[in-house]
Amino acid sequence: MNRNCALDSIFNSTSVAIAGAAAGRIGQAFLNCLLDSGFKGKIYPLNPKGGELCGLKVYASIKDVPGPVDFVIACIPAPLTPQLIRDCAPKGVKAVSFFTAGFSETGTQEGRELEDRMLRAARAGGVRILGPNCVGMYRPKVGLSFASDFPKQAGRVAFICQSGGNAIYLVRSAAYRGVRFSKAVSYGNACDINESELLEYLVDDDETDLVAAYIEGVRDGQQFYEALKKLSAAKPVVILKAGSSEAGARAAASHTGALAGSDKLWDGMLQQLGVIRVHDLEELVDILVAFSFLSLPEGRRVAVCGGGGGHSVLTTDQYAAAGFVLPPLPIQMQQELSHQVKKLVNSDAGFMLNNPVDVTNLATTEAHHVVMKALATYAGIDLLVGQFSVNNAGWPYADSNFSTWPEFFIEALIKAHRETNKPVAMIIHGVLSRWDMQKALKLQQQCYEAGLPVFHSPARAARAIARFLRYHERSNEQSG
Amino acid sequence: MNRNCALDSIFNSTSVAIAGAAAGRIGQAFLNCLLDSGFKGKIYPLNPKGGELCGLKVYASIKDVPGPVDFVIACIPAPLTPQLIRDCAPKGVKAVSFFTAGFSETGTQEGRELEDRMLRAARAGGVRILGPNCVGMYRPKVGLSFASDFPKQAGRVAFICQSGGNAIYLVRSAAYRGVRFSKAVSYGNACDINESELLEYLVDDDETDLVAAYIEGVRDGQQFYEALKKLSAAKPVVILKAGSSEAGARAAASHTGALAGSDKLWDGMLQQLGVIRVHDLEELVDILVAFSFLSLPEGRRVAVCGGGGGHSVLTTDQYAAAGFVLPPLPIQMQQELSHQVKKLVNSDAGFMLNNPVDVTNLATTEAHHVVMKALATYAGIDLLVGQFSVNNAGWPYADSNFSTWPEFFIEALIKAHRETNKPVAMIIHGVLSRWDMQKALKLQQQCYEAGLPVFHSPARAARAIARFLRYHERSNEQSG
Repeated sequence: MNRNCALDSIFNSTSVAIAGAAAGRIGQAFLNCLLDSGFKGKIYPLNPKGGELCGLKVYASIKDVPGPVDFVIACIPAPLTPQLIRDCAPKGVKAVSFFTAGFSETGTQEGRELEDRMLRAARAGGVRILGPNCVGMYRPKVGLSFASDFPKQAGRVAFICQSGGNAIYLVRSAAYRGVRFSKAVSYGNACDINESELLEYLVDDDETDLVAAYIEGVRDGQQFYEALKKLSAAKPVVILKAGSSEAGARAAASHTGALAGSDKLWDGMLQQLGVIRVHDLEELVDILVAFSFLSLPEGRRVAVCGGGGGHSVLTTDQYAAAGFVLPPLPIQMQQELSHQVKKLVNSDAGFMLNNPVDVTNLATTEAHHVVMKALATYAGIDLLVGQFSVNNAGWPYADSNFSTWPEFFIEALIKAHRETNKPVAMIIHGVLSRWDMQKALKLQQQCYEAGLPVFHSPARAARAIARFLRYHERSNEQSG
Repeated sequence: MNRNCALDSIFNSTSVAIAGAAAGRIGQAFLNCLLDSGFKGKIYPLNPKGGELCGLKVYASIKDVPGPVDFVIACIPAPLTPQLIRDCAPKGVKAVSFFTAGFSETGTQEGRELEDRMLRAARAGGVRILGPNCVGMYRPKVGLSFASDFPKQAGRVAFICQSGGNAIYLVRSAAYRGVRFSKAVSYGNACDINESELLEYLVDDDETDLVAAYIEGVRDGQQFYEALKKLSAAKPVVILKAGSSEAGARAAASHTGALAGSDKLWDGMLQQLGVIRVHDLEELVDILVAFSFLSLPEGRRVAVCGGGGGHSVLTTDQYAAAGFVLPPLPIQMQQELSHQVKKLVNSDAGFMLNNPVDVTNLATTEAHHVVMKALATYAGIDLLVGQFSVNNAGWPYADSNFSTWPEFFIEALIKAHRETNKPVAMIIHGVLSRWDMQKALKLQQQCYEAGLPVFHSPARAARAIARFLRYHERSNEQSG
């Protein structure tokens, strides 16, 4: 149990009402999210018209709901929000999450005043506000969600996000790569519950090992700094600070009413606190993938293995550019491997064993495993990086193994990883067609289920892993 | 007609033989490539066993072919290559392209000597060699190809590529985004026809406006410099130089026997000649897309428009970081637009009109067009950048336009572009699922068919367009 009881009760809601629940409108979508995510508590749709929605009785007002209500998700017209809060207070509602927009982010005095009125009502009634202008909360453990297709399985990553659209995209995008969340909170205009309170909550949150944040601006710099300082001392934090440019800051103000602040100050602060700063959502997912799946390599000596001579050369360049070392493999090791493999596949087809290792032409899992096992066992290598292009893998050459070798390769690499515990990262790139996408998603799932991080380009993989290593080095330096 | 008659006759081959044409093996794949690509000349499969393949008579030897043969594609064991060339010479064959590997790239004396013997035979017989260790030639105009699914339609981009796998990937990847090629040549070990000769050929090649190259190393630095100097003075050139790291250079040597050379020298040379240097295949495609589709903006004043508040903020940041200016739109213009749009869609839903312009909630093409037309007409903007995430577009909210608005948006943007000739670039991002991919490919095709460049991330779009602008500014400075 966390010391912030208000947030605790929201995260552990056992009864949720949806204000503005009408068939075919946003409110129904939020209702569907709860139903599809297996919310374990009571659900009360609210609508002045009453009736029934998705098989549930619709109550005309929160006042008519028979039992207690912990949490309200509201999609009602902005002018009605203060009254909703006044109705929620006597009911003992802990918090209301407002999808409703039209407040301070409009830049109008009218919008600012409405937000103020709503906030005053909340303070007076002891109700907390999430948002407004947000999509709310995802906590798979209790079945709270703001998208019907988010994983039901919980994980160890917490994400707080000022943008609703980016919250949906980030969780979904990371989920496709195997990342699982303890909770994700979209907090929009942050008129009450804000990024600082959320970050502070996460310091002692037992179910969270890693924190990600998308932030457009903070209202109280000092409070934020203190919260982030505590949090970053306790667990890794990665932040995507949007509004880094003057024009972007103006955009942030229109989007969530945020004051973006000086980007130089942000840079300095994040660096000082050892917070990983990223600049787009893909980079953010890459970092989450690295921290969620990669076991810590002992050093920077990498062997690149996989398919395609050209791709092998380019991947090698990207790893070298990111500060990794790619030692040549001992000649004797190469000769032995070549000998063993040729016995197995009975082929004189060329493959490179000189780090990068190009194994495109190997026709069996067994042959791939001989090579991968040798690399994973070799003490001169700290990290194996597997890479292949899904698209080139489909080069339609009838007698070749271009279509099937990635399956053999992945199987062998997973097996070698399991047998040796050598850190392994996988790059699946070259997705051009629907067919490629289907194949990539299948192989990606196979990898993350076996505990491997999967990246989508050599450059992005190298950068994310370099930052993962740097983070741990810094932690060791500071604790040592 | 180019002054290099040898290359001319290869590019204009009217009869092709395939040595090593056996059912279910690589030779048949090359045969399929010609058949599927509508090769207009004669095709002669060769195999000592004779018989028939894909409905064509198989000849035991090139000597048995009744008519003349211009070009031979060879996938035969390496030791047989010198004899093939000796057989080709009296037949008047202009060139042989060897898929066959096992030569200098093996790093063995045996491999080097075999390559030398093959080359001596070629010189003696007046036959040119492409490769070895390459996939040969793509020229849609005559139906030559090294993949069955490459576009049959010709374009104005030439691509030369030392890696076969990367040649296939690059052409396919660029083709999905609407880029069309005059020719693409995979040249592997470059024992005879090399990058310098090919680049020099392209100087006067009437069907080529833009040249891309993937190069692992060059054999003769002076010859290369002279060729590149002439070429880059005549048309834009973009080069992906692989083997930029020590380890990458070692990889390049194993891959195509290339000597990568000092990366610092490469950097200096390419910069001096105004050649655009890229570091991965995606960046290479981005540049080809920009040069193939974008009409030259008069300046760097950008309006970002599209969907998702968070995505709008991030896109704005990326453009600002790449040196673009995002001027606020005049208040009066915003007010008028807001008024007009609200009349059309009868909605009080929020949208941002303050550059970035967030139009996610507009429910008709007409409403989108009002905004896009105004932006395209406004003299304070040089370039419109449209952006949306395919995935967020599919947020399953029953009453919203999240699923359909990108169609309206794209239609409106294309229309405004047509009406005003204002340069427009499109970013389609957020492809996570097969469903997303299907949708993205369809919308992408709609855009490029309307003449719009499509990029897959805000950062990549901004960087590619900035380099496109910089290239033209440099050209103007030098000619001015």
